[in-house]
Amino acid sequence: MFRNFKLVPNILFGRGCFAQLDEIVAGRRKSGGDWAVFVVDDVFKGKDLEKRVPLHDNDFLLWVNVADEPKTDYVDKLTLEAKHFNPALPCAIIGIGGGSAMDLAKSVSLMLTNEGSSTQYQGWDLIKNPAVWHAAVPTLSGTGAEVSRTAVLTGPEKKLGLNSDYTVFDQVVLDPELTAGVPKDQHFYTGMDCYIHCIESLQGTYINEFSKAYGEKSLDLCRQVFVDNHPDSADKLMMASFFGGMSIAYSQVGACHALSYGLSYVLGTHHGVGCCITFDTLDEYYPDGVKEFRTIMEKTGVDIPRGLAKDLTEDQMETMIRVALNLDPLWENCLGKDWKSIMTRDKARSLFEKI
Amino acid sequence: MFRNFKLVPNILFGRGCFAQLDEIVAGRRKSGGDWAVFVVDDVFKGKDLEKRVPLHDNDFLLWVNVADEPKTDYVDKLTLEAKHFNPALPCAIIGIGGGSAMDLAKSVSLMLTNEGSSTQYQGWDLIKNPAVWHAAVPTLSGTGAEVSRTAVLTGPEKKLGLNSDYTVFDQVVLDPELTAGVPKDQHFYTGMDCYIHCIESLQGTYINEFSKAYGEKSLDLCRQVFVDNHPDSADKLMMASFFGGMSIAYSQVGACHALSYGLSYVLGTHHGVGCCITFDTLDEYYPDGVKEFRTIMEKTGVDIPRGLAKDLTEDQMETMIRVALNLDPLWENCLGKDWKSIMTRDKARSLFEKI
Repeated sequence: MFRNFKLVPNILFGRGCFAQLDEIVAGRRKSGGDWAVFVVDDVFKGKDLEKRVPLHDNDFLLWVNVADEPKTDYVDKLTLEAKHFNPALPCAIIGIGGGSAMDLAKSVSLMLTNEGSSTQYQGWDLIKNPAVWHAAVPTLSGTGAEVSRTAVLTGPEKKLGLNSDYTVFDQVVLDPELTAGVPKDQHFYTGMDCYIHCIESLQGTYINEFSKAYGEKSLDLCRQVFVDNHPDSADKLMMASFFGGMSIAYSQVGACHALSYGLSYVLGTHHGVGCCITFDTLDEYYPDGVKEFRTIMEKTGVDIPRGLAKDLTEDQMETMIRVALNLDPLWENCLGKDWKSIMTRDKARSLFEKI
Repeated sequence: MFRNFKLVPNILFGRGCFAQLDEIVAGRRKSGGDWAVFVVDDVFKGKDLEKRVPLHDNDFLLWVNVADEPKTDYVDKLTLEAKHFNPALPCAIIGIGGGSAMDLAKSVSLMLTNEGSSTQYQGWDLIKNPAVWHAAVPTLSGTGAEVSRTAVLTGPEKKLGLNSDYTVFDQVVLDPELTAGVPKDQHFYTGMDCYIHCIESLQGTYINEFSKAYGEKSLDLCRQVFVDNHPDSADKLMMASFFGGMSIAYSQVGACHALSYGLSYVLGTHHGVGCCITFDTLDEYYPDGVKEFRTIMEKTGVDIPRGLAKDLTEDQMETMIRVALNLDPLWENCLGKDWKSIMTRDKARSLFEKI
């Protein structure tokens, strides 16, 4: 039984193509009362991009703060704000920002049409109704959130995404010019998120030729960006991110992402840097990948936070292990059906002790 | 101004996944009266695949013959047959076969909702109404028809596709097992169609990083199949075909395809072998590609028909040139905006004289 993979059905790619966003959203405005929500990362407040958001009279500019990883209660609050702004359903929701802003846009578009709290839908295929039409404009490359079928959220019990076919964006606008201002460390961490999920996909037990073709090309593009310093790096990393997302969408991530979810849940560590921290402990499972990752890290001159384990309480360590081991498909992809006998609580603890 | 590229929104990939076709079509059957059309290449008559077509009571099995390249009057006839079978619109049309069968399925799905003859819609974005929901099950890899926004047809005036966003399939079922029985020469010709359109895309003036990522990986997979004789060749060529189609969908093919359209129009030469014949004359434009193509041809032991030019009448030669030079976007992609001063009628003639 193979999964019928839902793809983003419309893609616009090109330097400067952000200028066409207004025209695309116009296609959704069927009547005079139709309104759109622009979910925008608040780092762009007062920046040039703010002026370029194609806001119409009835539209709602919903600034989002992603200093913390997206949380379920934040999603519920944003959804309520949109409902208060206008009780009618919007015709479009457009997420502009990095992985967190895109995941918030996905989440709000789902929660406007699905009752209750977003915590109820953390898991696989729990969403009941189609989302409001939603589009992504990534301003950061590597997350793969622009093509994935998940919106990763931290809830009171767990860090786990809203995984469903309805989560997938209806439109993606890929404009490499928008990634120009990304700080060096974030560029590295998020680029490595892409590199790492390709390694996890390619070495996973779920791999097929579809995921392999995407994963291999994504790695190739990552290397052109981080090893060769190619002059078209912004374009290439945007495509690496897209291909990386396509690769894991049909297969799955693995041990590094599972551990990083535990880490982020307990310490609030951001996803990209969290993946770098946990990947650095995984020589045993991804020897070549970890080796190349360290070479790139050295070349880039960015380092990762170290020595986190020594300040963890026993409770924190236990929670990290619980959250990480809760992600069955990730472990099964990495270690096979028998993963529970390999990745024991003690083994997971020994890995977290290295961070 | 960049094109908002319409992708196939649902993809199923995997060995044996053809068994899931019934379930997928079931999702389209909303009421008891809903019926589907299976457009199937008649080479499968009496073969195992015929028994596996998931035909329900009210469904129509429309055998198609692709001994000739698809023609507009054939499309009009098939559309009429479907209307006679049941005047209500079908809920689904499923094309099972190679590029020609898939293009016929696309064409019928478009012509059931667009009035008049298919000749009226040969060109770019002339289709007015959305098609009937349509799916592809390729049994031959390389054409890219499973992802392209065109259905290539030969009409009374020209060989030119129904190019539109509505042409794109709603679902593709990629089962590498279905390509097992393809004859050696067809395997080579159709694989080279993929190889050639990637070369044309990558060396074209329309190229961007999106098309490049897809085109490069497709070429890589073609080489694994035809140069390295990789054991997973069926899976790899199916992905090469998909990626090749994605590459040209955002950019364009070039000189070889333009010439091959002229050749096919006049002599009825099938698309794959036609591309091989015209590509072999294009050292001047694609030197490395033509060289590698000849190496692969030698390795495969398949040859192409030669000496076709000597039997052409002057009228036939004139028609070939006219049809080929009618394809502006292909020439502009190959030679730039100024292509008319480079690819003169005399120059085109000199190329056709080499076939």
